[in-house]
Amino acid sequence: MLNRMQDRVYNFSPGPAVLPLKVLQEAQRDLLSLPGVGISPLEISHRSPWFDGVLNETEANLRRLLSIPDNYRIVFMQGGSRLQFSLVAMNLLRGAGRSADYLVTGTWGQMAMQEAAREGTARAAWHGKPHNFDRLPADRELDLDPKAAYVHITSNETIQGVQFAREPEVGGVPLVCDASSDFLCRPLPMEHYGLIYACAQKNAGPAGVTVVIIRDDLLESIDDGLPTMLDYRAYVKEKSLLNTPPVFAVYLVMLVTRWLLDDVGGLAKMHEINRRKSQMLYEVIDQSQGFYRGHAQPESRSLMNVTFRLPDDATQDQFVKQAKARGLVELKGHRSVGGIRASVYNAMPMEGAEKLRDFMREFAKIK
Amino acid sequence: MLNRMQDRVYNFSPGPAVLPLKVLQEAQRDLLSLPGVGISPLEISHRSPWFDGVLNETEANLRRLLSIPDNYRIVFMQGGSRLQFSLVAMNLLRGAGRSADYLVTGTWGQMAMQEAAREGTARAAWHGKPHNFDRLPADRELDLDPKAAYVHITSNETIQGVQFAREPEVGGVPLVCDASSDFLCRPLPMEHYGLIYACAQKNAGPAGVTVVIIRDDLLESIDDGLPTMLDYRAYVKEKSLLNTPPVFAVYLVMLVTRWLLDDVGGLAKMHEINRRKSQMLYEVIDQSQGFYRGHAQPESRSLMNVTFRLPDDATQDQFVKQAKARGLVELKGHRSVGGIRASVYNAMPMEGAEKLRDFMREFAKIK
Repeated sequence: MLNRMQDRVYNFSPGPAVLPLKVLQEAQRDLLSLPGVGISPLEISHRSPWFDGVLNETEANLRRLLSIPDNYRIVFMQGGSRLQFSLVAMNLLRGAGRSADYLVTGTWGQMAMQEAAREGTARAAWHGKPHNFDRLPADRELDLDPKAAYVHITSNETIQGVQFAREPEVGGVPLVCDASSDFLCRPLPMEHYGLIYACAQKNAGPAGVTVVIIRDDLLESIDDGLPTMLDYRAYVKEKSLLNTPPVFAVYLVMLVTRWLLDDVGGLAKMHEINRRKSQMLYEVIDQSQGFYRGHAQPESRSLMNVTFRLPDDATQDQFVKQAKARGLVELKGHRSVGGIRASVYNAMPMEGAEKLRDFMREFAKIK
Repeated sequence: MLNRMQDRVYNFSPGPAVLPLKVLQEAQRDLLSLPGVGISPLEISHRSPWFDGVLNETEANLRRLLSIPDNYRIVFMQGGSRLQFSLVAMNLLRGAGRSADYLVTGTWGQMAMQEAAREGTARAAWHGKPHNFDRLPADRELDLDPKAAYVHITSNETIQGVQFAREPEVGGVPLVCDASSDFLCRPLPMEHYGLIYACAQKNAGPAGVTVVIIRDDLLESIDDGLPTMLDYRAYVKEKSLLNTPPVFAVYLVMLVTRWLLDDVGGLAKMHEINRRKSQMLYEVIDQSQGFYRGHAQPESRSLMNVTFRLPDDATQDQFVKQAKARGLVELKGHRSVGGIRASVYNAMPMEGAEKLRDFMREFAKIK
């Protein structure tokens, strides 16, 4: 009666992306009726003791995974990262009498700066467009304003496949990070950050919920005129229950964070696995004598999105088609840049990366 | 291995609320792998042909169910109705040089007006607070401004249990309706409306998606300075794919609208069923010789939320406790008003309403 897990393909989509099988199985088991409750997680009240437990465990799991200190709040919002582009600026820039610095390292960072510019002055402290967003800046290249309201980075650019290996040095200015596509892929030194936001649909859960982690002191200077639903303080005050949150999506984030703790064994282990998965693909690129041309310069390569081109469009189409025939799907690059993109997020099994590696070797006729 | 449907209770929650069993069963069946796709609906790309089909069918189903004319757009958003309180005013009031009229018939209408007041001038064209929101206004009681940017109503007030039986007469001013808690409960004369918004978690799906239906001409005068994610035009232009929508929640709305068409047989039939379910509860109230005291005056009674009080708090607690022992749950009124609230949305089976009716008769010792 149920569709079988054997039917599943390897899904290299950049997001919404693959989820751990165990998480899907648990959600499936309880979909008609939560044990001892008799209500589906798709139907249950956000004011129920069950959901109270979900919120508490999800927060606790995130605190354990990322060692989040007590002076940071965690809230669950809707609207995706793109709404955060505006909210960050509304909450931290509007009325601040200062500008904000943006490190523009790809398409998403560029869009974040554009949206911020509707709320105040947003400066590019570094811009990767002249070299097609193929690398990240060294600290010495940054043109930072020490009086900026914040510095915004995109820790991983999903489209270009470039990722910060470590946080840039920004002095005492609060660092704001769009971590949407590499959240929970590795441990983070939280004390470097003022605010981190991440839509869930890459490493943390399904589409429809966004995690925001914010340091207490940043809540203090928020303008009072904001609509309630766009004011971080309201979510903190009401513990994400300002209105009905996306209950089912938060529940999935709980299951994913539980899987990271109990099955993977934490983010250091996850990081090691992610390094192995991406490295095996980059190795094929490097061994292909130019057949596969990686987009990102080696020191800026993403652990999450491996982007490359083939000799021509016809060969690329063949690649996508033959891969699909083997159950390796969603390998086409973003429509804005083309090429191939293999997203190997946390939940992509090692076997999926291995099968793709083997196919890439075979397709390029690497001995 | 799966939890059984026999474990399910009758869930009278005001929202998130009960979903049709058939919808849950279909979602459960495909949760690991969509047939012919091999990916979970929790993982699949919003740019996939499968989701394209979901968006198209959901829109087509809504158009059929509500006979929505061609000059209305349908979009799927996030943030719930509470975000719409602000968006309506940002999009239709900001910069309009006019004020907006609000018919304040309960808690939600009041909150909608408060949020609008942050964006422009919001007037109460009628306010039910003096009589505790126990009835709706007659057209002759309305103090309408013929030059208003729009008139806002809350078609059903979930907390107080009052519902408009028909649209108020507002002349040529666009009627904006928060239909969150009675959307799809009955047919609507769409041509009376300029804009309808409804969060899904009552009659249309799970929490996490909001349906907005907007007449073309209202899109023309929107201010250009809005953040992209808060501008209705951007959702219309990108057909709800401005950024990643809540894929799974939209999919559930598709299944619910399909159930309404194929299993229920349309909204006229749904309306008839809803009338029977609520009427059997109101009859017990009216026959109880004052043991149950309904909150709403009879002509303003809601088909969705049946609100009443018992002689005292201790008896109310007994009522809730004994009902729960019979599998009739979530009957406590909203924390702001107390009492009992039985929500009998579309997906509450007739047997659930009958069981509650029988229990109410027994508890009140009605022969």
